[in-house]
Amino acid sequence: MKQPIRRIALSTGGGDAPGLNAVIRSATLAAINRGWDVVGIRDGFNGLFLPELYPEGGLIQLTRERVRGIVHQGGTIIGTTNRGNPTAYPVQQPDGSWVEVDRTPELLALFEQQGIDALITIGGDGSLTIGNHLSEAGLRVIGVPKTIDNDLEHTDATFGFDTAVSFATECIDRLFATATSHGRVIVVEVMGRYAGWIALNAGVASGAHAILIPEIPYELEPVAATIRQREQRGSKFSIVVVAEGARRVGGSVSVLGKAVGQAERLGGVGEKVATELELLTGKEARTVVLGHLLRGGTPTAVDRLLGLRFGAAAVRALDEGVDGIMVALHSPTVKYVPLSEVTSRQKTVPLDCDTMLTARDMAINFGDAMPT
Amino acid sequence: MKQPIRRIALSTGGGDAPGLNAVIRSATLAAINRGWDVVGIRDGFNGLFLPELYPEGGLIQLTRERVRGIVHQGGTIIGTTNRGNPTAYPVQQPDGSWVEVDRTPELLALFEQQGIDALITIGGDGSLTIGNHLSEAGLRVIGVPKTIDNDLEHTDATFGFDTAVSFATECIDRLFATATSHGRVIVVEVMGRYAGWIALNAGVASGAHAILIPEIPYELEPVAATIRQREQRGSKFSIVVVAEGARRVGGSVSVLGKAVGQAERLGGVGEKVATELELLTGKEARTVVLGHLLRGGTPTAVDRLLGLRFGAAAVRALDEGVDGIMVALHSPTVKYVPLSEVTSRQKTVPLDCDTMLTARDMAINFGDAMPT
Amino acid sequence: MKQPIRRIALSTGGGDAPGLNAVIRSATLAAINRGWDVVGIRDGFNGLFLPELYPEGGLIQLTRERVRGIVHQGGTIIGTTNRGNPTAYPVQQPDGSWVEVDRTPELLALFEQQGIDALITIGGDGSLTIGNHLSEAGLRVIGVPKTIDNDLEHTDATFGFDTAVSFATECIDRLFATATSHGRVIVVEVMGRYAGWIALNAGVASGAHAILIPEIPYELEPVAATIRQREQRGSKFSIVVVAEGARRVGGSVSVLGKAVGQAERLGGVGEKVATELELLTGKEARTVVLGHLLRGGTPTAVDRLLGLRFGAAAVRALDEGVDGIMVALHSPTVKYVPLSEVTSRQKTVPLDCDTMLTARDMAINFGDAMPT
Amino acid sequence: MKQPIRRIALSTGGGDAPGLNAVIRSATLAAINRGWDVVGIRDGFNGLFLPELYPEGGLIQLTRERVRGIVHQGGTIIGTTNRGNPTAYPVQQPDGSWVEVDRTPELLALFEQQGIDALITIGGDGSLTIGNHLSEAGLRVIGVPKTIDNDLEHTDATFGFDTAVSFATECIDRLFATATSHGRVIVVEVMGRYAGWIALNAGVASGAHAILIPEIPYELEPVAATIRQREQRGSKFSIVVVAEGARRVGGSVSVLGKAVGQAERLGGVGEKVATELELLTGKEARTVVLGHLLRGGTPTAVDRLLGLRFGAAAVRALDEGVDGIMVALHSPTVKYVPLSEVTSRQKTVPLDCDTMLTARDMAINFGDAMPT
Repeated sequence: MKQPIRRIALSTGGGDAPGLNAVIRSATLAAINRGWDVVGIRDGFNGLFLPELYPEGGLIQLTRERVRGIVHQGGTIIGTTNRGNPTAYPVQQPDGSWVEVDRTPELLALFEQQGIDALITIGGDGSLTIGNHLSEAGLRVIGVPKTIDNDLEHTDATFGFDTAVSFATECIDRLFATATSHGRVIVVEVMGRYAGWIALNAGVASGAHAILIPEIPYELEPVAATIRQREQRGSKFSIVVVAEGARRVGGSVSVLGKAVGQAERLGGVGEKVATELELLTGKEARTVVLGHLLRGGTPTAVDRLLGLRFGAAAVRALDEGVDGIMVALHSPTVKYVPLSEVTSRQKTVPLDCDTMLTARDMAINFGDAMPT
Repeated sequence: MKQPIRRIALSTGGGDAPGLNAVIRSATLAAINRGWDVVGIRDGFNGLFLPELYPEGGLIQLTRERVRGIVHQGGTIIGTTNRGNPTAYPVQQPDGSWVEVDRTPELLALFEQQGIDALITIGGDGSLTIGNHLSEAGLRVIGVPKTIDNDLEHTDATFGFDTAVSFATECIDRLFATATSHGRVIVVEVMGRYAGWIALNAGVASGAHAILIPEIPYELEPVAATIRQREQRGSKFSIVVVAEGARRVGGSVSVLGKAVGQAERLGGVGEKVATELELLTGKEARTVVLGHLLRGGTPTAVDRLLGLRFGAAAVRALDEGVDGIMVALHSPTVKYVPLSEVTSRQKTVPLDCDTMLTARDMAINFGDAMPT
Repeated sequence: MKQPIRRIALSTGGGDAPGLNAVIRSATLAAINRGWDVVGIRDGFNGLFLPELYPEGGLIQLTRERVRGIVHQGGTIIGTTNRGNPTAYPVQQPDGSWVEVDRTPELLALFEQQGIDALITIGGDGSLTIGNHLSEAGLRVIGVPKTIDNDLEHTDATFGFDTAVSFATECIDRLFATATSHGRVIVVEVMGRYAGWIALNAGVASGAHAILIPEIPYELEPVAATIRQREQRGSKFSIVVVAEGARRVGGSVSVLGKAVGQAERLGGVGEKVATELELLTGKEARTVVLGHLLRGGTPTAVDRLLGLRFGAAAVRALDEGVDGIMVALHSPTVKYVPLSEVTSRQKTVPLDCDTMLTARDMAINFGDAMPT
Repeated sequence: MKQPIRRIALSTGGGDAPGLNAVIRSATLAAINRGWDVVGIRDGFNGLFLPELYPEGGLIQLTRERVRGIVHQGGTIIGTTNRGNPTAYPVQQPDGSWVEVDRTPELLALFEQQGIDALITIGGDGSLTIGNHLSEAGLRVIGVPKTIDNDLEHTDATFGFDTAVSFATECIDRLFATATSHGRVIVVEVMGRYAGWIALNAGVASGAHAILIPEIPYELEPVAATIRQREQRGSKFSIVVVAEGARRVGGSVSVLGKAVGQAERLGGVGEKVATELELLTGKEARTVVLGHLLRGGTPTAVDRLLGLRFGAAAVRALDEGVDGIMVALHSPTVKYVPLSEVTSRQKTVPLDCDTMLTARDMAINFGDAMPT
């Protein structure tokens, strides 16, 4: 039988997403209300591995006072990092070269030394895979899924996505004013390296005229034809939303986004689309890259609620004696999914999903067919 | 076999909700793109029954141009009304008294006279029941569910609700500043006559300390005890969210909200709760009634998308030869529900739903148990 | 010659206003960057007079860390109160009665005991008058003006006002949707007991059709006539903005707002105006009271800047050896006004100011003349 | 004596700015309420010169109905253009080359032909100079100043600027979350080719740690030193705001922004600053370019009011028999400035202005001195 829990730790890994602090708040309160002690590990596992970086300590005591008024804050109060995977930790050799070392045993010893009975790890597929590894090594681990792109399998939704879609929609609303007044084409590039969820949702919600997503390799002639058709109907402006991972039909840009990354250094896919549409239509085109703007900011009520629900469910699972799982939204409830089932496969937009059908009904162009 | 559709009409009934114009836009574009003609009936069915009220005509021709730039507008461009039920139409008698007359045959004749082959009616249970009646009388009818309170059965969600929760959350965020600075109790009254969805979601999302909803008859002593407990922990302020339909245990306020209505004339349930909490805690309490503020405004991306999906799905159903149904969200897709199954029974908050469990884990008080 | 300053205290009094934390931040940083020590006195002067209320101490050490990330927060991190005037402090007598005592000497002793060389007091005319009293008693005092109503003389603007006008405008924008869709009259009551600045600015900015302000005693027949005229032109809805201190021509409601207060207990001036307009026009009218919603929330950039400028200027004045003054905006610069000149006379809206002329040009009705 | 006015025209030129529609609305209503007829010329003067581009006519009749609900819309309902200066109109010669022709006489004839007695031209220094030219040629002209950068002389403020500063501030607020969570440097590039008003105001309001503006040639070593100093104090992140026209000390980037333009094609000044700060500090740096996002969107209450006041004042001037002037804000009132005095000289940030002093007091680094 499992030992009762007295102390748990929270950790966030990977890019920040609005709603992280909601998870931290509800997990902390749910744990404190059960008489548990709660700490946050700074910057992934750095707070444990590199305590010398933190004069005030690598663990933050999470009290009622400390988690007060944080739900409406973007980011994460315990910090995050994209580095320091404990299962493949970069260590410099005497000869100056780097090798990756599995520091799992050391990490487990640090948890035991700190009296930490369980870990709630909040992150994307990378963090969840590490979580699974630690779970299999004997630590009680609960995963909380996080990806602003909404491309994680096994959960209907992740927090941060609604905030990103909302702010992207607001930004595109703003750009309509300028596009209309000047009779211009405006190309808006949004996040989404492997999946077009943000581009599709924000594009449809804001009334974009064309949307380019990774799931549908595009040609630009149909988009140009849509712009020309609109011009003939008296609408001299058009809005095109492009996911950063969108790629041309048969193009050399791989689905893994590698070549897209290179393109980005030359100006990004949005810039390329705009340049080409100018050539094809003879109209002025401008590019706006929303990028990091979509990641920060006060989370929407939807994302706060999802984060709060995930955090409380994680503690509830531990209290029920369940671990080695990820909490996940299976609308309308939160379910448990074994961490061992989490993969790095992306959840992409099904081309026959309801939002796609709606977009097609409204004659939004996806770069795959001429307008009728 | 059904005649092909050439012309359809849209009608909105009941209170306005953010997202109505999204339905109108996508239904219009989806219909025009199928070669159909689309008109909007002004103010429910008034545009047909009382054309003399509208010098410019009781029907609005819905063109691409007319539905441009409306998705981000609150309200409904074709107008709405709470009156004029065609199945029980109030008609004044020669002696001055009023009787209710079934004007269905007359309405059907007007539809035929205008060459309208099908009706998309957007409204709450009242409008949907009328829709079912017209459907049974032979008209091709599609219902689109609308309730800002989210209390309609057979659909996971209705547009307008997310906007209401978002703005209520933003308002409560604002009130935290004043409550904290002055060490006060602030009672916020939100919509929700029969169901506490808005109060629960906005209350949890904003970090309220107590939430009173129609589903849980309340006592105020537990709420006062929560306020006192917070004071002892150094938090001199508290936020209480109250649904307009919340009622006291064993109170004379009926679930149908009648007596609540009377209370409202004396200041509303929020005002009563604040007054009593002042007496119980000796602290200053203030009331803010959000009311109509939650109904207007730019719809959130969530509500725009839901409205757009419902509107397009309604046209798709007609195109498939389906009618006599309501489109409804069964996450993640839109399904058809027979209009004959729509009832006036409210969808209330299940006390064991995930959000309630989260709230309990965070020790939010619902007026049904003393804090621990 | 004055002793060099080593330690200063900040204090906030009266109702909170967005921008208070900006003053606290810039004053703190400007002082720390001069090598001074800074403390905040909790809740007016309570932190000095009633230290037993604050287990963690009645003075808050204001460090770089403590004032980080506070500029975008509403309220005041050091707390405020409407009570505890040191020049007329309520003290209970042995017989149970209360008398007001001048505790100035005691307060000066407390300042000296704490090694506080100067006070920056942020507040309305009450706090500034107290500040003048302390200054005349020998303390180095700088006043920072604060009134969300914008009705303080000697300064072109006060922080909080722009945030209030902005949010009121946003709320009225929202109400337009419902008013339009239902063809209703909506009466919006905003703050402004003695001056109509908020009502005038938010009303004109949002396109209200009538505005009632304390400066212009109103009749409701002209407002009703405006509503009827709009109806005849096809606009079935109207928006009326009412300052809480607006009063009827020849009415018993005094300019000091006493009788208005009584009316408020019966439902507020907004409710009265709505009820009467319903009778006069036969149209449905609804009331929304914005009240405390206007006081909290993230300050606008304008209010943050004004607060930051005032806070830094207060420290600069002390550094220059100036005290006994209030910092004030004389556009575009911040000037010093002797505290002895600050009075309780309100700065009301001049009836020939540019915004009034604009409103008249646009035929907005002020209840003082029939529409043409 | 001047003929009474019966018909006026409005025209907007140059980039759009939030508040243009407010000018159009108030000028239209003020004119209609005086019994005048009002038209808008599409896209600068194109509606007159190139009527064949506009099947529905190059002039838009501006009625009460047409200007309803436009105040909260960004952009301009009559369109704008950066081309088509009537005093230097590009005309293609038979040999294919282009020459600039003065089409003023033709334009005056078109005004007369359309029965237009006066012109209200809304634009930047270019449009105002054209306005002066037309005025000297005999047309009654009123100028309304417009520049989102706030760099126009003779007026304290222009509409659009407050909206730009507000949205830039909101965006920087969002970026703080990511910067803090990841311990990164984020460089935000905002508009401002010749003057740093937007960068300075948004930077100070949002709490940026360094601000680079065209008025102060920068070195990056002081900025890097500020970032390092913050790191030593435990703040691992920093925010740097850069105006697009900022330039390095002694750099080849001219004040006219020419070379900056070239830099922009290589990634923009923001990108260059970020790259270099990464090298200097060893920290990850990211760039966000706000660009066109600042131009659109719902205008703030401040900008609506300023636009409404300018539009009404323009009509009032004509009604008083005044023309050949620009309306301008001389706080707190609107004054008239002769169009002949308007120059292309920019109003830059005075280095001793109050906001600069505040920024210095808060130790914000401007790239011109090492931190202390």
